[in-house]
Amino acid sequence: MILVETSHPGNIGSAARAMKTMGMDDLTLVSPKYFPADNAIAMAAGAEDLLDTATVTNNLTDAIQGCVRVYGMTARPRTLANPALSLREAAEEAALRLQQGERIAWVFGRERSGLTNEELDRCHRLVNINANPNYSSLNLAAAVQLAAYETRVALEAAMSSEGDAPELRALPPADDLERFYAHLEEVLVQIDFLDPKNPRHLLRRLRNLFGRAELDANELNILRGVLAHVSKTIKPGSH
Amino acid sequence: MILVETSHPGNIGSAARAMKTMGMDDLTLVSPKYFPADNAIAMAAGAEDLLDTATVTNNLTDAIQGCVRVYGMTARPRTLANPALSLREAAEEAALRLQQGERIAWVFGRERSGLTNEELDRCHRLVNINANPNYSSLNLAAAVQLAAYETRVALEAAMSSEGDAPELRALPPADDLERFYAHLEEVLVQIDFLDPKNPRHLLRRLRNLFGRAELDANELNILRGVLAHVSKTIKPGSH
Repeated sequence: MILVETSHPGNIGSAARAMKTMGMDDLTLVSPKYFPADNAIAMAAGAEDLLDTATVTNNLTDAIQGCVRVYGMTARPRTLANPALSLREAAEEAALRLQQGERIAWVFGRERSGLTNEELDRCHRLVNINANPNYSSLNLAAAVQLAAYETRVALEAAMSSEGDAPELRALPPADDLERFYAHLEEVLVQIDFLDPKNPRHLLRRLRNLFGRAELDANELNILRGVLAHVSKTIKPGSH
Repeated sequence: MILVETSHPGNIGSAARAMKTMGMDDLTLVSPKYFPADNAIAMAAGAEDLLDTATVTNNLTDAIQGCVRVYGMTARPRTLANPALSLREAAEEAALRLQQGERIAWVFGRERSGLTNEELDRCHRLVNINANPNYSSLNLAAAVQLAAYETRVALEAAMSSEGDAPELRALPPADDLERFYAHLEEVLVQIDFLDPKNPRHLLRRLRNLFGRAELDANELNILRGVLAHVSKTIKPGSH
């Protein structure tokens, strides 16, 4: 992540924290107004290591050395002449690069005025965060948080699509389920709930419901316990 | 967005700003430590209107009234017993509900300790933000920013693919579900099934099960009918 001419050092600290929550640690500051600064450390809240290892340069060109793809954040609306990517599109592209071991950079401009046209020229892609057109004033650290998050999610997706299946819940065998449904029917009759003229309809609804829940063996035992207690409780007095 | 027992009013302001950048305006505060507060206004930076119109309640149950789907943010790792959704999965699901004009809620816990187990029980889905497992300390406003952003992006996607939107089950509001759970607890006590020393554990299992089943209003009526019949049947003779 590259922050250009940040005015408030607290924002640098918050940005470092945002990066670290997403597992990123490579921070570059282009001509920060105040740095190092106590307020940066205070806002980093445990991510001071990123401040310690941050690179400081005095221009963007130095900062982007070695990056195969440089993404410049802009709040300007997309135009035909200037077709910015959405943050997600950019992150998905970036993830494929990162996966290959290549370096990429996200570039964030000044708090008030963003990146200059010259700086945007250094960027390979312009990136626009989907925001409320009537109030798009994202805090600098909030924008860093979103970019870091999107990169992490895209990277996870890219890595996991290299193979294997998701972990599945362990389900009880069908015969256990059938015993439960039989027990349920029996108790529903005992408590006079089942319409004897049309028992199937209701039971189908209940099968449907419990089927969707994908009961595990433990839950099945709980429900059978409930049914047993109902039976036991009603037997003495009823009918 | 629902913030539960926020300690620092500045975080409420930052959260309001984060929401507004994504076009959201419905903020509910459950027992905030300080509110209204100057620091909240200062951090809102143009989103004070959300603070002015914020709803304040003293419990989560009141806050979620009318919401068909309640998403609880948790930093706890996913387990098989408790398969939290990723933020993106949750947002995509939420967007389909919003598109139908239904109400949903994102619930954020305390800065230090998150949501209690009892509060998580009120949530229909647990949501885990993909983060660095070694440093997952997202700032409250940062988490709100990510959820608001994901909702906005998912909603944009849902709207642009309108027409081939899937037909969704109509879900009852959270308050109807809560009444069912209260009724269930009552009957389980009546039939001597609930261990009075540890009622929560079992009820949590049952909430979990019925939550997964995504009961519709009709099924809720059936189950309430079952409960009513159990009560009626056991009353005369038992004990």
